[in-house]
Amino acid sequence: MKQAELTQKVTEYIKLNDNFADWLGVEVLDSRPGYAKISMKIRKDMINSFGSCHGGVTFAFAQTALAFCSNNYGNIAVALETSMAFTNPVFEGDELIAETKEESKKNTISVYCVNVETKSGKKVGVFRGTVYKTERQYFGGITVED
Amino acid sequence: MKQAELTQKVTEYIKLNDNFADWLGVEVLDSRPGYAKISMKIRKDMINSFGSCHGGVTFAFAQTALAFCSNNYGNIAVALETSMAFTNPVFEGDELIAETKEESKKNTISVYCVNVETKSGKKVGVFRGTVYKTERQYFGGITVED
Amino acid sequence: MKQAELTQKVTEYIKLNDNFADWLGVEVLDSRPGYAKISMKIRKDMINSFGSCHGGVTFAFAQTALAFCSNNYGNIAVALETSMAFTNPVFEGDELIAETKEESKKNTISVYCVNVETKSGKKVGVFRGTVYKTERQYFGGITVED
Amino acid sequence: MKQAELTQKVTEYIKLNDNFADWLGVEVLDSRPGYAKISMKIRKDMINSFGSCHGGVTFAFAQTALAFCSNNYGNIAVALETSMAFTNPVFEGDELIAETKEESKKNTISVYCVNVETKSGKKVGVFRGTVYKTERQYFGGITVED
Repeated sequence: MKQAELTQKVTEYIKLNDNFADWLGVEVLDSRPGYAKISMKIRKDMINSFGSCHGGVTFAFAQTALAFCSNNYGNIAVALETSMAFTNPVFEGDELIAETKEESKKNTISVYCVNVETKSGKKVGVFRGTVYKTERQYFGGITVED
Repeated sequence: MKQAELTQKVTEYIKLNDNFADWLGVEVLDSRPGYAKISMKIRKDMINSFGSCHGGVTFAFAQTALAFCSNNYGNIAVALETSMAFTNPVFEGDELIAETKEESKKNTISVYCVNVETKSGKKVGVFRGTVYKTERQYFGGITVED
Repeated sequence: MKQAELTQKVTEYIKLNDNFADWLGVEVLDSRPGYAKISMKIRKDMINSFGSCHGGVTFAFAQTALAFCSNNYGNIAVALETSMAFTNPVFEGDELIAETKEESKKNTISVYCVNVETKSGKKVGVFRGTVYKTERQYFGGITVED
Repeated sequence: MKQAELTQKVTEYIKLNDNFADWLGVEVLDSRPGYAKISMKIRKDMINSFGSCHGGVTFAFAQTALAFCSNNYGNIAVALETSMAFTNPVFEGDELIAETKEESKKNTISVYCVNVETKSGKKVGVFRGTVYKTERQYFGGITVED
């Protein structure tokens, strides 16, 4: 199987089976090997006690982008360290877009940055994640052609 | 009003009004000025595509502990930077406990660490957050006696 | 004074007066308001016990880039939180280049990413820093024309 | 060889062979498997352009504590991600003490927090590091008795 084809299969698999990404309402805008662009809309049940989007929701959205891009080569990747700078508040009704950048790709360790902004282009989060790529495959027995 | 009394008022206010903390199912085990200990139970709708708890949920839980402790002096505090090392996987049914430690307290900037572990004592996350304390009060017009 | 002119004055001031940047052997390749690009060469006295460049040196180099870009509007900025992913080892003789990106600029808080790579283009570090901009000016009494 | 004995051998080896730790003037106050406590004194050549200790120096000191504790089981460990919150300024003449805490220890990945404070007890930095433990040993051919 071609890598691009396997990446699509994994992306669809995650989309169908990740319960929390489903709760977030994540849509996949684009997915290529080591890359993902996703969106979501902030709902009332994501709001904190002073009327903004809970920082944990914005963070979890970025971490979901990390999951889509770091798993989509075909192997399960687990986050070791993730971090985010919160640069603007997010409100109910905001549509967020998260886009990943693969900063480093090694056999077991990869590093990604994720930029999170509103649809209107206001940057709300600058995220980085370091993942450990396990040997567990989403679809065992598949050989990736180069 | 005594600080301890105001802290209880704010804690109850957050508990009642934070929609996302409510979705997480957060319980407050303890709350004192600059300190919070909370719990939650991992449900099926928090699970990712390979059967573990979504890292964003564990992170959001730690960030909720940060919110409880950094806001409970009475002013709204917003996260500037948060980060977590994920040290063990979390599964459906796990009961998580997050306990905060105030590492530094200044007029506008405070730093907290949050330890996240299962009820049985397995450490699952080591979190740190730096917050900016705004001048907006939860309950305006209250004077805190020392 | 024009901002660009003040930025040059501050850059020269830091270059002349930062003792540790001097020890690192930092050269300023480019400097504009909110931006800096610097270089250094790894010497024998920067090496750790197993023959690589000490991670603290690579980190300090990135933090120096942060200092040049976050201070060069004219006010003293202090780091609140800094972090780095180390993506490749660095060795004696390597020439490192650090380039900053201003991710967010607010009145008191700004966020920068710094990319660190060797002259030959091997990425060695992905850094982020959040700074607090004080009211202390490098050159008091200067009015910046827009 | 007993683990405690090997830990002493590695600690002495790092102390003798880490050129940058030597430049920092690091003293080892205590060292046990997975633990280290070190000190240093801030000199004039570590000062930045506005008269404080360069943040990169304080960070590098914490990273050196990380190196001592994460390597002292006998295998070379490399930092994947390190981060620090800066909680108070540091000045020339300050004596700093860094003490590590092993938050998580796995076969390949370990997580450490490092607390950095002045001799008089003022906390100046809260550091965390995630390391990857390689199979390269400091002293090959040694079997560690339990």
